[in-house]
Amino acid sequence: MVLKMEKKALQDKSPEIISNCWGCGRNNEDGLQIKSYWEGNEAICTWKPQKYHLAFPEILNGGIIATIIDCHCLSTANTTYLKAKGIETNEIGQESFITGSLFVKYLKPTPVDKPITLRAKVKETKGRKITVTCDLYSRKKLCVTGEVVAIKITP
Amino acid sequence: MVLKMEKKALQDKSPEIISNCWGCGRNNEDGLQIKSYWEGNEAICTWKPQKYHLAFPEILNGGIIATIIDCHCLSTANTTYLKAKGIETNEIGQESFITGSLFVKYLKPTPVDKPITLRAKVKETKGRKITVTCDLYSRKKLCVTGEVVAIKITP
Repeated sequence: MVLKMEKKALQDKSPEIISNCWGCGRNNEDGLQIKSYWEGNEAICTWKPQKYHLAFPEILNGGIIATIIDCHCLSTANTTYLKAKGIETNEIGQESFITGSLFVKYLKPTPVDKPITLRAKVKETKGRKITVTCDLYSRKKLCVTGEVVAIKITP
Repeated sequence: MVLKMEKKALQDKSPEIISNCWGCGRNNEDGLQIKSYWEGNEAICTWKPQKYHLAFPEILNGGIIATIIDCHCLSTANTTYLKAKGIETNEIGQESFITGSLFVKYLKPTPVDKPITLRAKVKETKGRKITVTCDLYSRKKLCVTGEVVAIKITP
């Protein structure tokens, strides 16, 4: 079975209320503007750092990595929830999640001058909480792993 | 006993090799340029977000928070280590730490339009690892807690 990647980025379908998020908001001109795409049961994001997103020379900053894992995992949680409910659009943000906690483990230095790819999927759903795990690769090398607990909020 | 805050920021004494860090590098003009000060046995940082560092409207982005906790805790680990060794300056970076893992727990939304204050101190030292805990306040209200495992690297 070949899984088809959906054509529209999750952030381009997300509600207006988060469209100015610094990590993933489509309308935040000063932000990172990551784009995540759904494929099978996971979300995939490829993103190219700016040269000033440094930790040490040549190495991508750990806070930038944390930001992208956070935003990408929240989109993964939200999309999994919407798909399970059969909800196609969430325009007014009536079905939204916030981050309860974020854990990032830095396994290897991540080069700043190469695109990174993140793959995230839901590990567990329990009440209002969805736990999402995420792997971050640089040229197919696993550099970072992350886990986000997303919490469903009542508008 | 009144603890006196040291006058020079830890980042202004840190080695050249991390002076372009996006979170705390004094030479990174595109970065957050946080400044941490030593007081007693902890490090304190006050920082004002930009208005575009958003998550939701009016709320500070969680990735920005994670970045600042990461950098502030690394400086705390490094300074604690240097003080214990009686090392006054670390200019060439022969005594440096990197982040092994980062955990952030978001307790309350943090306003984007107010300065935040972080207080961090060492919880445990074990071999090459120093664990640092951090509390983040907005106008004296505890909004976020964090924990960083810093790892001593050999140059």
